[in-house]
Amino acid sequence: MSEKQIDQQRLMTFLSDFGDRDIYIGVMKGVIAQANPRLRVIDLTHQIPPQDIAAARFCLMNAYPYFPVGTVHLAVVDPGVGSKRRAIAVEFAQGFLVGPDNGIFSGVLSQSPAMSTTGYAYAAVELTNLNYWRTPQPSNTFHGRDIFAPVAANLASGVPLKQLGQEIDPASLVKLDIGECKQTSNGVVGCIQYIDHFGNLVSNIPASYVQGKTWYVQAAGLNIPGCETYSDVKVGEILALVGSHGWVEIAINSGNAHSRLHLDWQAPLQVVLT
Amino acid sequence: MSEKQIDQQRLMTFLSDFGDRDIYIGVMKGVIAQANPRLRVIDLTHQIPPQDIAAARFCLMNAYPYFPVGTVHLAVVDPGVGSKRRAIAVEFAQGFLVGPDNGIFSGVLSQSPAMSTTGYAYAAVELTNLNYWRTPQPSNTFHGRDIFAPVAANLASGVPLKQLGQEIDPASLVKLDIGECKQTSNGVVGCIQYIDHFGNLVSNIPASYVQGKTWYVQAAGLNIPGCETYSDVKVGEILALVGSHGWVEIAINSGNAHSRLHLDWQAPLQVVLT
Amino acid sequence: MSEKQIDQQRLMTFLSDFGDRDIYIGVMKGVIAQANPRLRVIDLTHQIPPQDIAAARFCLMNAYPYFPVGTVHLAVVDPGVGSKRRAIAVEFAQGFLVGPDNGIFSGVLSQSPAMSTTGYAYAAVELTNLNYWRTPQPSNTFHGRDIFAPVAANLASGVPLKQLGQEIDPASLVKLDIGECKQTSNGVVGCIQYIDHFGNLVSNIPASYVQGKTWYVQAAGLNIPGCETYSDVKVGEILALVGSHGWVEIAINSGNAHSRLHLDWQAPLQVVLT
Repeated sequence: MSEKQIDQQRLMTFLSDFGDRDIYIGVMKGVIAQANPRLRVIDLTHQIPPQDIAAARFCLMNAYPYFPVGTVHLAVVDPGVGSKRRAIAVEFAQGFLVGPDNGIFSGVLSQSPAMSTTGYAYAAVELTNLNYWRTPQPSNTFHGRDIFAPVAANLASGVPLKQLGQEIDPASLVKLDIGECKQTSNGVVGCIQYIDHFGNLVSNIPASYVQGKTWYVQAAGLNIPGCETYSDVKVGEILALVGSHGWVEIAINSGNAHSRLHLDWQAPLQVVLT
Repeated sequence: MSEKQIDQQRLMTFLSDFGDRDIYIGVMKGVIAQANPRLRVIDLTHQIPPQDIAAARFCLMNAYPYFPVGTVHLAVVDPGVGSKRRAIAVEFAQGFLVGPDNGIFSGVLSQSPAMSTTGYAYAAVELTNLNYWRTPQPSNTFHGRDIFAPVAANLASGVPLKQLGQEIDPASLVKLDIGECKQTSNGVVGCIQYIDHFGNLVSNIPASYVQGKTWYVQAAGLNIPGCETYSDVKVGEILALVGSHGWVEIAINSGNAHSRLHLDWQAPLQVVLT
Repeated sequence: MSEKQIDQQRLMTFLSDFGDRDIYIGVMKGVIAQANPRLRVIDLTHQIPPQDIAAARFCLMNAYPYFPVGTVHLAVVDPGVGSKRRAIAVEFAQGFLVGPDNGIFSGVLSQSPAMSTTGYAYAAVELTNLNYWRTPQPSNTFHGRDIFAPVAANLASGVPLKQLGQEIDPASLVKLDIGECKQTSNGVVGCIQYIDHFGNLVSNIPASYVQGKTWYVQAAGLNIPGCETYSDVKVGEILALVGSHGWVEIAINSGNAHSRLHLDWQAPLQVVLT
């Protein structure tokens, strides 16, 4: 393989709900290496709560902009494995997506600009070409290993999308209905859509609603001041700020807002502009 | 190093019970990079329960077939470190194994076909050649860093097995006595040999006993239907199926069988053919 | 990029308190790949207890000697992000350090020999050159992504330290005040400075105090024998030994000393020479 060919290989990312206790992740990377030992795979996370498509959707949507154009994002949170749900690959302006058609990619695709070459926002195929599967008789419970990993490895090695299966209407892809925030007379009403490792409570209210304004958050019966950064309040105090993903978050300076406030996924909150 | 030499380098995998909290794994990868900065290492898992050789044996046995021929599998679950247990490297038909001689590799080796070049199933050496250790005075508690990592890195870089130490009789390698399943008049009696991250209960009964048959599992006082895939039962219902590793498993559609059924490692179960 | 240039690239390591549940680590690796897709990153650990600079300092200090000379160590445990704490890069005899100036590197630098080229032990810059940031307007909460990752990637790609920002006095770097052990008439008094995944209790007493001597440890009201290796006592028994990092540790053969003895971080202990 020439130097030029090496450069044409695409980076891969990998997200799943497999956790780190079992060999599922390692085995999928082995299958990728069997297809092409030169491919590089960056783990996004494998700690998506089991079968939580919404959390996976959130993570993919917030991660893809930080990868090189052309990156192949492999994502396997797949409660419907073995049922009739479709296995898909999608090409969008910034790269490729490979995984089950269950809404996991609907966050990325809602943000993606149109692809200039086609005029469409993205192109999609159902993975019906068995030549790119690891085996024509895949396990009923592990399409990650037998379908998604080898297909993604081939895509990252330069195989064109359309060779992987039958083209499908991009509009037919499953969308996940995530509650959207709503503007009110004096602010925005939303909910918690993600809780991170530090206990920061990430809402579904984008930064644009609060930037350059004076504001506070009402949640858990508290009025929480809108700040610029953690150290705007004392250690141990609660604050709201625009987090690194670009959403309004509730946090505690050097502490864990999740365990202190007992707010959970989907809990409501309100931004009040003053 | 020429392009050809790069291609001759072997992929490595790495399995341990080190967890992800400490720097042990990173340090071993540093030692590997000191030996050869071009080597690639795929983590199988580092969450083997501390000192659980049986779990490590199960994981290695189910993972190795998914890696390229020639892969070097480095495995460190080593409760006997610092005692007289041997440090070994093994060459078998599909690659190489490096780690302690405590039975960790006995699952892989029980499955391995004979090596055509030697007529033996595999060749083994004790790691007595100090030239390939990181230091001639290894730590008493971390042979992973001081012996296994540098030896595996050299093996993956092309050093022949026999240079690594004294040849030993393959038949002398420690075998782990795992209870095997037993055929009965109307089925098979076995036990749980692994519990995965999703709470799926993996038995020691291979798929061959149930494929193409009608069957159910008796366990925890329940009769559990033998199915093809999770979605053959309703969400929340218990089923038995052939899991992705090729063993009969007990699972719950979109749920956790381990926490629901309170069956643990070694718990008995029975497949009944109808 | 020529083969020679590939060889000039430096290995990177990455340590943080980000855990493995979120996409922070993956996103930073994406940013590194955007800067230079050929760079290789080895994870040290991402399970530093949140905002625990002392634990990060310990891990870095014990890990760096096992990596090739020239390795770039990226470390982000950064409770002061968004405040006035400096962002820094340091060149020392064995490589480079990139992260916040909060004492995280003070363990490494306390051990580092002088750099022969300058006569100083190390050189340091504040990361004031915005050309090497991902964006001139970094997030207030995630300098890892917007400053440290791209700067470290550039350093690993060969950009000279002094291009990254304003030189600062190495003596001005923040030092973390870790309690040091003290010699007594018949031994040494110290404390627990780290607890690993196996529950081994790592003290701040270096091996040099006990090597070649007969000794025991007083801790938790017990006299614990000084041994060579785990198997010097029976399974389940408590022992003290020199651990793989070169510090006196308390351990249990095939057990967990932390959960048995209820000794925690900073707990006092005493080595008694006999």
